[in-house]
This record gives sequence, structure tokens and C-alpha cells, in this order.
Amino acid sequence: MVKELFNINSVAVIGASGNPHKLGYTVVKNLVDYRFNGPIYPVSLHAQTILGIQTYPTITDIPKHVDLAIISVPSVAVPQALRECVQKEVALVVIISAGFKEIGGAGIELEQQLLEIIAGSKTRILGPNCLGLIDAGSNLNASFAANSPKYDAISFISQSGALGTAFLDWISANNLGLHYFVSIGNKADLDENFFLERMQSDRLVACYLEDIKDGKQFMQIGQKYNARRPALILKPGRSAAASAAISSHTGALAGGYEVVRTALQQCGYIVVDTVGELFNTLKAFAWQPLPTFDKVAIVSNAGGAAVIATDVLMEDGLELANLSTHTVDTLSNALPRTVSIHNPVDVVGDALSGRYLRAMEAVLQEEDVSAMIVILTPQVMTEIEETAAYIGEMQKYGKPILASFIGGTLVEKGLKLLAEKKIPAYHFPETAVNVLAHMVWYAEYRKRASYNQNQPVATAGASPYAEEHKEAIFALYQQARAVQAPALPPESADELARRYGIPVPESYACRSVDQAVMCLRSSIGYPCVLKIAAPSLLHKSDIGGVITNVKDEVALREGYLQLEEIIRQQQIPEATILVQQQVGQGIPLIIGATRDANFGTVLIFGSGGIYAEILHDISRRIAPVESHELQKMLEETRVYTILKGARGQKAANMKAIMQVIKAVEYLMQDYDFIQSIDINPLMIDAQGMCAVDVKVVLA
Amino acid sequence: MVKELFNINSVAVIGASGNPHKLGYTVVKNLVDYRFNGPIYPVSLHAQTILGIQTYPTITDIPKHVDLAIISVPSVAVPQALRECVQKEVALVVIISAGFKEIGGAGIELEQQLLEIIAGSKTRILGPNCLGLIDAGSNLNASFAANSPKYDAISFISQSGALGTAFLDWISANNLGLHYFVSIGNKADLDENFFLERMQSDRLVACYLEDIKDGKQFMQIGQKYNARRPALILKPGRSAAASAAISSHTGALAGGYEVVRTALQQCGYIVVDTVGELFNTLKAFAWQPLPTFDKVAIVSNAGGAAVIATDVLMEDGLELANLSTHTVDTLSNALPRTVSIHNPVDVVGDALSGRYLRAMEAVLQEEDVSAMIVILTPQVMTEIEETAAYIGEMQKYGKPILASFIGGTLVEKGLKLLAEKKIPAYHFPETAVNVLAHMVWYAEYRKRASYNQNQPVATAGASPYAEEHKEAIFALYQQARAVQAPALPPESADELARRYGIPVPESYACRSVDQAVMCLRSSIGYPCVLKIAAPSLLHKSDIGGVITNVKDEVALREGYLQLEEIIRQQQIPEATILVQQQVGQGIPLIIGATRDANFGTVLIFGSGGIYAEILHDISRRIAPVESHELQKMLEETRVYTILKGARGQKAANMKAIMQVIKAVEYLMQDYDFIQSIDINPLMIDAQGMCAVDVKVVLA
Repeated sequence: MVKELFNINSVAVIGASGNPHKLGYTVVKNLVDYRFNGPIYPVSLHAQTILGIQTYPTITDIPKHVDLAIISVPSVAVPQALRECVQKEVALVVIISAGFKEIGGAGIELEQQLLEIIAGSKTRILGPNCLGLIDAGSNLNASFAANSPKYDAISFISQSGALGTAFLDWISANNLGLHYFVSIGNKADLDENFFLERMQSDRLVACYLEDIKDGKQFMQIGQKYNARRPALILKPGRSAAASAAISSHTGALAGGYEVVRTALQQCGYIVVDTVGELFNTLKAFAWQPLPTFDKVAIVSNAGGAAVIATDVLMEDGLELANLSTHTVDTLSNALPRTVSIHNPVDVVGDALSGRYLRAMEAVLQEEDVSAMIVILTPQVMTEIEETAAYIGEMQKYGKPILASFIGGTLVEKGLKLLAEKKIPAYHFPETAVNVLAHMVWYAEYRKRASYNQNQPVATAGASPYAEEHKEAIFALYQQARAVQAPALPPESADELARRYGIPVPESYACRSVDQAVMCLRSSIGYPCVLKIAAPSLLHKSDIGGVITNVKDEVALREGYLQLEEIIRQQQIPEATILVQQQVGQGIPLIIGATRDANFGTVLIFGSGGIYAEILHDISRRIAPVESHELQKMLEETRVYTILKGARGQKAANMKAIMQVIKAVEYLMQDYDFIQSIDINPLMIDAQGMCAVDVKVVLA
Repeated sequence: MVKELFNINSVAVIGASGNPHKLGYTVVKNLVDYRFNGPIYPVSLHAQTILGIQTYPTITDIPKHVDLAIISVPSVAVPQALRECVQKEVALVVIISAGFKEIGGAGIELEQQLLEIIAGSKTRILGPNCLGLIDAGSNLNASFAANSPKYDAISFISQSGALGTAFLDWISANNLGLHYFVSIGNKADLDENFFLERMQSDRLVACYLEDIKDGKQFMQIGQKYNARRPALILKPGRSAAASAAISSHTGALAGGYEVVRTALQQCGYIVVDTVGELFNTLKAFAWQPLPTFDKVAIVSNAGGAAVIATDVLMEDGLELANLSTHTVDTLSNALPRTVSIHNPVDVVGDALSGRYLRAMEAVLQEEDVSAMIVILTPQVMTEIEETAAYIGEMQKYGKPILASFIGGTLVEKGLKLLAEKKIPAYHFPETAVNVLAHMVWYAEYRKRASYNQNQPVATAGASPYAEEHKEAIFALYQQARAVQAPALPPESADELARRYGIPVPESYACRSVDQAVMCLRSSIGYPCVLKIAAPSLLHKSDIGGVITNVKDEVALREGYLQLEEIIRQQQIPEATILVQQQVGQGIPLIIGATRDANFGTVLIFGSGGIYAEILHDISRRIAPVESHELQKMLEETRVYTILKGARGQKAANMKAIMQVIKAVEYLMQDYDFIQSIDINPLMIDAQGMCAVDVKVVLA
């Protein structure tokens, strides 16, 4: 990509140094050591030559064309150096220097200045505040990481230079190769999207990203490439998200890290949570084919370790493969007579490598097995290296194989041999299982994605409600805006919902207690609900502004006075009191949507009512959502079990639930003035459903 | 222990062999290689000498006393060998041979025979089907694992020989020492309790257990020793538990693995789930002091890695320490001016070892820091070994320190140096965090346990209800038994609950629809609930046997006929129809108890109603439970947030909830005929509470 895109045949190092303790020396040395196949021009005012190479006082003094310049000078000197690069028409400038946006204040301005300098030119910037880049395909190490990785079609984009160095050290020690390593630093100009888009020839990419600059583009790139090339993403910050401010239920439930995870997984990025998960998973994707389904066979000389692996396997949502009679017979011949044959397959402590071989061949030939995990402990008879060699041979069956050799010094050689055979192997069996779970997840995504490619492109489509209701709903908005309300008043929110086919309870705003009594008598009926309604009031319950189960006129009169008192105390004279039909029993759901600045509209569905925030039983999607994805949204929640009709109850009308989610999607699509919609609870039972509380926050 | 208990000064190996491929050779060689300080007597019919040592045809031919015999002959020959050991008055016989209980059938009988042989003698058996034992304190390797661990006061009991060998290999490679290694095999005679009880002098013990032979004794040993000596337990089989049969809500929620975990944690065993967790956690407990509270400082030269560690830290329930102004000032002097000072402390990519040192000293002197995690990535300036050496020195502050050096070859030497300094160090920062979470958990247990030691011993105490109600409740039981009912009929269950102070709804069994109408008019009032009640009917809802929200007489008559029809269809003529007061809104809880054969009465509390089984929001305790533990039971659930009064609601009466749990405990204590009690839902709101459905299954 760097080669192709920037066609780099020559490199200048601005800030090159003859002092081995300076980065400007390391950079030149790395270029030389990796045997870059083109001229290297150190730029230095101090040294005549560096590592025997002639230097130039400035880049403009270099007589020939320069394709890539690496800048390693104090931050204040960077603008001038960059200006000279632009003048020299350098295609790519890697700015290693720190002291920009990351230090705040003047650093932010300085970084802005860099963008102004390249504006209108053909020069692009990687960095500043980065480690540089490596293109193992061109033997180009334009970084200050002293690594010389061997080539493989795998690339890594890192927003942290530190993790970049750890990664480079790790891949070398683990027999892995690399194509591009890109340290994107502050990504003032070139960002993850630029590079991801251009890593098309790679088999696998991995990213460590602290933020995603353009979420929508990132998703588009995912939709375009992830179905044929796995992309692993480590995005830290889950804990920060947890403490983010809450403006509405949906806001809290749809916000922060969970939105990023939803967006990324929806377009096939494989999301990992920790450094170990990233490194370990990468190894398996790099070396092994994908499983075609989720059934796993375990072969082990340690029964206990196999049970532990099974525990983790179940927790990760994988399944143990069923062994056919034929496989069981084959295994019976391979194993000691006393062993009961089942999966996990226990080859028993005294298994020599030949017994492992016969057991592995039997399970890999089993149709129900899509992947195999081999576990070994170093017992007295165990032939560690021979077994490792046989495991390597098993790749001829075309199914993914992962291994765990548990121990210390004894198993080290076996692990090394497995790495040479490109079998991902780990000290602990649970690691192999967790990694395999990512492979199965991705394989399933790929299946869905290829199914989707034969379907019409996902789009919310034209809203069937807009034409008829647009004007009326816009009027509701203008009324609220006129009083600078942050949200639609409840009556308006209910009306908006009703117009988009979402059933809401009968409800009347009353001016007096007598009007309320009349209203009850003539239409709603007891028991009923009393509510304070005011545009400024988002959490009515918090101030005691909701009285449910009002059973008769006495209770109604009493409750009405109580709410009037609260209105006085809270000083919200604009508030009204609503009487509302009390929705009987049912299952409380939450359905909502919010606009995420980076990824667009986030739809949520899950357990509602008082449970919404403590249970976190929520599924999410970035809009638009197709109908089979809507179905999956329902299925991903725990409340789905209840909706299906647990314990003799009739099943809820799933189609109706999906229509409400879809209606919310249309509302978000049709009205830019809506920031978020929050239906909680949506009460549902076999008889029907009702959106008891609809909240519409304005943008 | 082995030394002390069995006073082993001489060892015989029955089935010793001169053939290096036989276990009987390995065992003798291991004894010799580890330099056991006493006579070794190989017993063999074939060889004259083995490894230069004279052999004997049988153990009875040995002229001197034998303290320990290791039997490694085919299983059929074991009884005779054992008989000779008994005759020779050998104190401890380690039976390595397999082919006993683990193969079923004749093996079970053969194992039973072994117990008969030693009955009445002073001979005890370890095994059969085990790896043997190692006592590093006496240089005794009575196993076929060819390891010679160095001494430390740490012991490991393993029910899997395979994991035992992996463990031994791992501790040697990780610079750890060992006191006893005991492979308990089929534990026909000596079991985990025997050895745990006798490992008193050790600083740390770890167990891999596939089953726990005597749960109550295991708990007693925990109560006795765990407050001063950490004990790590790896007990696989979580997934098996998940598929266990369900007989009642409480049965499912209190059963299997979760009971074991509850029991173990309640008496201070540190429960780990995977092999990696066991090994990694052991290292930290072996080498580091305990944290005194849960606040952690992170020092890192990689900001991203620190954020990932923080994510995991929060998920594990730990907290980041707050840095005082003084510490921030000290750090300001230690760190580059551009760095913003907070925890995690970023020493920045160019940190030399000196900067690490100053930062570590500053945070370790901070009062709010109880533990430190140091993260290092191998950047160009990083002084890996020097930093490792400084980390070692930091132990002078007496706070636990864990490290993560992320990378491959470059960091290997640093990791090795850390192991020499007894700093637990891991490739990935999340591992360090997970391990530290176990240390914090244990430190908190220890605090609670020492608090408890100043309290009266936990006991359910005399039941305040028994005297008055025992007779009446026993009569209820006899009525149910007379018709061979598996459970008390609902009316009896309600009565039993009422007698123990648990509020139940007003409820009447009706013989006709007219009686029901009368009953409603005179006392209960609409809306009401209609229910089918029959001793054999455990899940009424499953057959549509519950109609709620019956609003008027029309609905009552209709519902009554409907239930009569169901009774006919289901062929349960013994069923009656109950009319019951409808309990208004509230939060549905579940409270229950069940008798576990191994650990005793298991009490549960959590989210109830339809949510009970999908949410798994349940806390558990083995009875008896003291009041401050009852409080913790409440706090451990997510529904507690709601009970405390989320969103403006009044708090529920926690004391009343605890009284119900206590009443359930008394019922289990007072009536052996109860197998389980299941109150679901217990509806609660600020006004009060009501046990809507009480189920009492008979033993």
C-alpha cells in the first residue's frame, strides 16, 4: 500500500543524528539494517555522514526526488521542515516528533498549522507523535522500532506506539510475519480509514484504536472488506463509557463503548477487549482456516483440562461436536479399552504420539466436527515433540486446529514446533477456546454477509408514515421549540408515537380535579394512572410525579392534590396533570433510539421498566436494520425467552414488536429534530401492547 | 505432613523394574534422583538390582521396617501387594496402578476390596490411579513425575495426575518452590480433607478437585484455616451443572456448580475457573503480601495498555486509587512537563528506569494506594532489566506489586529477572488485574473472618417459631404424605409460611363458582387471582392454571369455568380452585432454600417472578447465615439497586426481606421433611410485601 500508493523509492530523514542515543540515529540505522532498496538521505546540520551515508543540510538540498521524509526534530521546528517537504513535493511525511495535540494548548495549534502547510499540496502526513511505519514487502522500516519482521500478508494499525513496539516484539518471537505496521499517532491527516481502505491485498488486519475518527466511513469500509478479510479491533475505554453522563434511559444504554461495539460488530469487525486477546486471536486467524460451524472436538491426555476447556466452550457459546457411531468405533480401536468414548476425547495419560494421531484423525474425519482443540500435559510417557509434529500434519483435513500444551520447560519445545507448523498454541486451554469463539463468530458473520449480498442493500426505505403525518408532527415540534422545551411534552410524544402506529394508552390532560373525575367516569375507567407532565421533566418518577393504581374517586382526588403540591414545590407552573388508562400486567420492554455523532442512529431493544438500567438486557443496532436483523435483535436479549412464551404463557406478537422498532427508526429518519426516542415501558402480553411512556428528546 | 504424619524414613517400591520404559523404574529413579535420605527397597521378582540397589521378591522379605510403599503393579495384583503391606505394617501405601473405580464395573469392586484389606489396620492408602506424592521438605519424590522441585511452603493437591505433571513443570519453569504435591487419584481412602487438614505449616495451598468428597467437612476446614492461609480451588464442571435437571426454580437456581462455589467462597476458598487463573494467581499469592483494600495504582510506559488494564480493573470490581496533591506534585517532578498527572500514571514512552523508579516510589507512598501494577512495553529507550530490578526493590514498601511486560524476545529477560525477585509478572496486563482481584477478594474475606471470630459462632439459633407451630405444621405434612403428594398443597404451604411470619395473600379454596363469588363479595375484593391448586401441580402457569387481574363477577365466572375445564383436561380431579387477593404492583423477588446432599441447606435470594430464571440475579449462602451476611446477600444482587429506592421510589423494608430469608432458614432447620422452599414471587413495595406463591417440596 505504501509502496503502491506513495511509490517510495527514496527516503529522507530530517533530524538525522550521528549520536546513537538519539531517535534521529535509530531511524537511519533501522532503514539501513532492514536493507531498504533505495537511496537514504540523512538531513542534518551537524553531521557530515551518518553510518557512512552523506548528509544534507536541508531536504531541499537533496539533488534527487524524495518520496518519503521522516521528521524527527523538536516540535517547534516541524512546521519549517514540513514546508520544505511540501516544496520538495514529498508524497508522504512521517512525523515522529511529539508535542502536538496530545499536550493540549499550543500543541493543538501547532498541529493545526501542519494541516495548513499541506493544504492544497500532494503531501500527506502520518502522525505526528507516532512510531512511524514498516512495509515488510519493501524492506522499509521508516520507524524508530528496531525490528525487522519477516513478510506475511498481515497488517497492524496502532494508535499507540507503545503497543506497536510490544506487538512487533511479540510477532517476531511468535514466528509471525507482517506486511504493514502503521503507527498512526495523532492522525492529524492520514487515519485508520485511509490505511484500512488500502490494505486490500492483506489476508488479515488488526487495529488498536483509541478513537475512531469517522465512524460511518469505518463501517462502510467494514461492509466492503470484512466479509473477505478478517479485521481485529482492540478499542479500550469500556470503563470510561460506564461512567458517562446519563440524559435518558436510551441515552445511557445506547451510549459510549457499547455503540462502538455494536457498530463494529454489525459490519463484521472482530472486537477484542484485551491485549492478550488481540495477540492470541491474531495468531489463529493468521494461520488457520475458518470453522464452517460451531461444533468443536477436544482431544486431550488430561481429562480435567478437557473439562475446563468444555466449561469455557459452553460459556463462549460454542458446542461440543457429536461423534457418530463410526467415529466412536474408530476411536475405540485407537484408545485403551477401559476409556469411555465421547467428546472431549480423553486419550489418557499414557498416550504416545501415535494414539494422539489416531484420535485426531478420527475426530477430524467426523462430519459434525468443524474445529479441533488438542490439549497436552507433559506426562511421563508423553511424546511432546512427536505429538506436536502430528498435530501439524492434521492440517491436511482443512479444519482449524488450535492447541494447548500446559506446563513449563518440558512443553516449551513442543510449543515452538507448533508455531513453526503454524498451529496456534497456548499455555492454557481456555485461551484456545476463547480464540476459537472469535473465529466461529467471524465465520458466522461471513455467512450472513454473503447472504446479505444477495439481498437488497439495507436501507430504512421510504417511511410509510411521513407523507400523511409530517406536517402535524412538525407542528408538535414547533410548539415545543416555542417554549424552548428540551423534549416534547408527553401528550405530543404520545401523539407522535400514535401517528407512527405505536399504540399508546388513552390519556387526557386535566385542568382541575373535577375535570379529571369527569374524564375517568366518561371514558378511561379505574384503575388509572396520574402523572405530572411538563416539557422540562424527564424523570417524573424521581420526584414522585407518577401515581399508579388509582382505584377510585377518593384515591383520584387525593392523588391529584398530591401532584399539585409537587408541582408547587418543584416550581414547574407549566406542568399539567394527566390521567391515563392504566395498562394491566404484561412484560415491560424498552425500545428506543438515539443519534450518535459518529455512527448515526442507534436502535435499542430489551427488558424495560425498572429493570432497564439494572439488567442491561439490551440489544443494539445501527440503523438501518433489515427485518432478519430485527429478528436477531429480539433473539439476543434474555427477555426473548419470556416473550416466546415461557411457563405456559402465550407468545407475544414478535412482528408487532419489530414494527415498533421499525417505526422508531422511521421517526429518526424522518425528523432531524429528534435527538432520541425512549419508549419505556412498552408493556406487552398476549392480548396486545401499549407504549406506556414515550419520551422524545429534541436535538 | 507426610513426614510428620507417617514419619517416612524408608520407602519400598512394589513393582519396581529395571526397564527404563516402565513406571516401576521411573519411580525408583525419581526417589534416587531427588536424594531421599533413607533406604529405598525395590521389590521385584525379575531384577536382582535396580539402579544398583538390591531388590526383594516381596515387601515381607525386607528385613527392616518400611514406612511408605509405592505400588505399581497391574490392578489385579494390587490386593495381594496391599495385603503384604498391611502385614508389614506399612503406614502409607501409594497405589499408582490404574484400573479401579475409574473404569467402572469390576474396577469398582476391586477398589472396594482395597478398603476391606486395610480395614482395622494402621495402613492408609493414597490413590489408586494417582501420580503419587512429593514432599520437597524431605526430598521425597514418591511419584512417577520426574521433577525435583525446590522447597517452599506451598502445597498442591490434584485430583488429576495430568494437571499435576503440568503444574510441576510449570512451577519449576516459573521459579516457584513446593512443599507437598499430592496426587489423590480415586481417593479411595485419603482425600482432600485429610491432606488439607494436615497442611497447616504451609503458607499457601492449591487444589484441583473434580469432586469434593465431604462438603461439610471441607467447609469446616476452610473456616478453620482459610483466614490465615489462602487456599486456591479449581473445580471444573460449570457446564455440566448448567444442564442439570430442574425440579423447581430454587432447585435450578441453587443447584450444581453454583452451590459448590457459594459454599467454598463462604468459607474463604479462593475459587478460580481455569488452569491459567490457577497458575497465575498462585504465583501472586506465593510471592506478594495481601492488599489491605481495593485501590490500585497503575504505572505504565504505554497509555493504551494502562487504559485496557483499567477497563478490566473496573469489570473486576477494583478501583483506581486517588492521588493526593502531594503525590501529584512528586509525580510532576518525576515526569515530563507535558504529561497530565493522574492514575493510571503514564511515564511516557521514553521513560528510562529512573523515571519508572520515581513514579513507583511516589505512588507506593500514597496512602490511597493498596497495590501497584507496573506495565512495560519494550520501546527504543526502555531499560527493561534495570526497570525490572527497580520493581523488585519496590517491595520494601510492603504493598503487593504485580507486573506486565508486554512483548516477545525483548521482554523475556525482564520477566525472568522479575521472577527471580519474586514479582509476579505476566505477558498481558489484564492477567495481572484478574490476579489482583483474587487477592483483594481474599483480603476482604480475611477481614470479615477476623471480624467474625470476635462474634458468636454462626448458627441459625433456636427457631422462635418451632415451639408454637411445630405440631400444626407436622400435621400439614402428614396430610400431604397421606396422599403421597410430592409437595405441600398451596393452602398448606401458605399456612406454613404464615406461621413463620411470612405474609401471604388472603386466599380461599372454593368448591363452586358461587362460593367463589360470595367469597369475593364478602372479603377479598376485585381484582383477584384464580388459581388451580393440586399437590401434584408444581408449575401451574405452564398449563394455564393461573388467571390474574380478574376484574369483576363476569370475569370471575368465566375464569372459574376455564380452570374447571383445565382440571378436566389435565385429569387432576384432586385439584381445587383458589381465589386469592391480587397483590398490586411491586418488585417481584425470589427467596428459597434447598437441601444439598453435600453442603447442607442452600439459601437463595434475588430477582423473582418471570425474571427469576432468565436473569440469574441470585445470591446464595449455605445456612446458617448471620445477619451481616444476610445484608450482603441482598447487596450482591442487581435488584438491590431497585429495592434501595431507584428513581424516586421509597426504599423497600430490607429488614423484612431478611426476616423472610431467616424464616425460610428456620423452616429448613425445624422440619427435615422439607426438601426445598420456593417463594416466587415475593412482591414488595414501600407499603409492604406478600409471598404470592409459596412452594414446599417434600423430602
